[in-house]
Amino acid sequence: MADTTYTPPKVWANDTENGGAFAGINRPTAGAREDKELPAGEHPFQLYSLGTPNGQKVTVMFEELLEAGYSDAEYDAWMVNIRDGDQFGSGFTALNPNGKIPALEDRSGPTPFRVFESGAILLHLAEKFGFLLPRENPARAEVLSWLMWQMGTAPFIGGGFGHFYAYAPEKFEYPINRYAMETKRIFSVADNQLGQTEYLAGNDYSIADIAAYGWFGALIRGDAYGDAATFLSMHEYANVARWVRAIDARPAARRGRIVNTATMRERHSAADFDAVEDQSLLSEVKWKTDAQ
Amino acid sequence: MADTTYTPPKVWANDTENGGAFAGINRPTAGAREDKELPAGEHPFQLYSLGTPNGQKVTVMFEELLEAGYSDAEYDAWMVNIRDGDQFGSGFTALNPNGKIPALEDRSGPTPFRVFESGAILLHLAEKFGFLLPRENPARAEVLSWLMWQMGTAPFIGGGFGHFYAYAPEKFEYPINRYAMETKRIFSVADNQLGQTEYLAGNDYSIADIAAYGWFGALIRGDAYGDAATFLSMHEYANVARWVRAIDARPAARRGRIVNTATMRERHSAADFDAVEDQSLLSEVKWKTDAQ
Repeated sequence: MADTTYTPPKVWANDTENGGAFAGINRPTAGAREDKELPAGEHPFQLYSLGTPNGQKVTVMFEELLEAGYSDAEYDAWMVNIRDGDQFGSGFTALNPNGKIPALEDRSGPTPFRVFESGAILLHLAEKFGFLLPRENPARAEVLSWLMWQMGTAPFIGGGFGHFYAYAPEKFEYPINRYAMETKRIFSVADNQLGQTEYLAGNDYSIADIAAYGWFGALIRGDAYGDAATFLSMHEYANVARWVRAIDARPAARRGRIVNTATMRERHSAADFDAVEDQSLLSEVKWKTDAQ
Repeated sequence: MADTTYTPPKVWANDTENGGAFAGINRPTAGAREDKELPAGEHPFQLYSLGTPNGQKVTVMFEELLEAGYSDAEYDAWMVNIRDGDQFGSGFTALNPNGKIPALEDRSGPTPFRVFESGAILLHLAEKFGFLLPRENPARAEVLSWLMWQMGTAPFIGGGFGHFYAYAPEKFEYPINRYAMETKRIFSVADNQLGQTEYLAGNDYSIADIAAYGWFGALIRGDAYGDAATFLSMHEYANVARWVRAIDARPAARRGRIVNTATMRERHSAADFDAVEDQSLLSEVKWKTDAQ
């Protein structure tokens, strides 16, 4: 391994062109890169997102709210193409100065305001509608704990394992081992918990489940990062698989998963789902692995 | 760079012994490794932690509560030595199944319950005492957004940059560049924001500031990861430096920073601070850099 060692300079400079699949968009500075207004629809919530695991959190939440009869939760979902740099337009960075999807504008009251970070949007909507977040402790504290756990661990799965296994310009052994270990540890935490409780934070479905579903579902079904499900032995996590299948069976989750994807680039009303060509996407979720 | 490329196996196996400074404690499975009960004191809150940036979030919060006169926020803080594996004792993993500090037991009511993840503990205490988290929107949404932003970005600073720059067994060029870029981007987001507002989520100090202070403070003062402040040109972030100095000046922050460190391994009452040998730690915070 001696050939891999280098001596860092005293002061880092951004002279590397070699950042892998997302090299063109990463920079060491934040902020808007061009003037670009966002579109807006008629509904009280305007969502600017993409159907990644982080984006799905919010669309699944909105669809669960609507499924449960909260008609005030109607939303317009606009696609943000992160490979084209849509997240660096001035309209978007005004909603999320971190320049990442998802970002929400809440127009339900007299003064519109922003909410950014998927976990904050989940909490905001849960509090606003009194939905999927218990008001009393200890149930509330348990949901908040698992929600924060998801927010703090996903960067090791996506920005760590996913990047080095699938997106980096070369296969680097040490980082792949590091993040494979940590991703498996995270799945082990969830599998232990889901062996004791039906859902992550107890026996009731909550925003902690919605937060984790996109990330865990993609890996355990075999949807993410090529053959990562085999590489990470996802068949070992039977409790996680059981839980993913239970959420897969929820109509709101199936709808939420296709919003802001190639299947449904924008979502403005329930009728948009009727117009989806492949209606099987709304009646079942396919698995590429044999995880039980 | 060709020498660094390898072909991952089809199925990952944990046969690597080479994990750097923390190699001995990392495993791909979660859960208790030994039976070990936790100590407990008399106060309504029992904290099990270590004075890292994540641990400091909670001790600063408790000290701010006590400073503001919330005498019901009295706490016992017990040190968890993560290099010795204290976090894998059965008592600790019952409080935090993720096996990481900090973990809290709330004994303020008839039935004790757990809260884990630093961000969840901050939210829980803020809601319980109605302190440093606005009740009304948009101010509340802004605090939740920045709190979640801190939770989702710190893994790139600590688990990413810190690991590869300071702790990995070799200096790997690509990951150091990747995480240096991202750490600088995160500081740039904060610096832009703090150029517009006094605190992260607006003009009032909030739990979002407490969450970010430990991580940002350590880097910008030069306390973290060797000469990382020079490597990352921390002098570029004058607004972040101004904000760190403002929080450094808060007596509660100075107290919170030394709890569960070599200076004060355990904290059981305010008198413990009077017993600290070097009282200058409580009257000033030293900086190793010239960041303004």
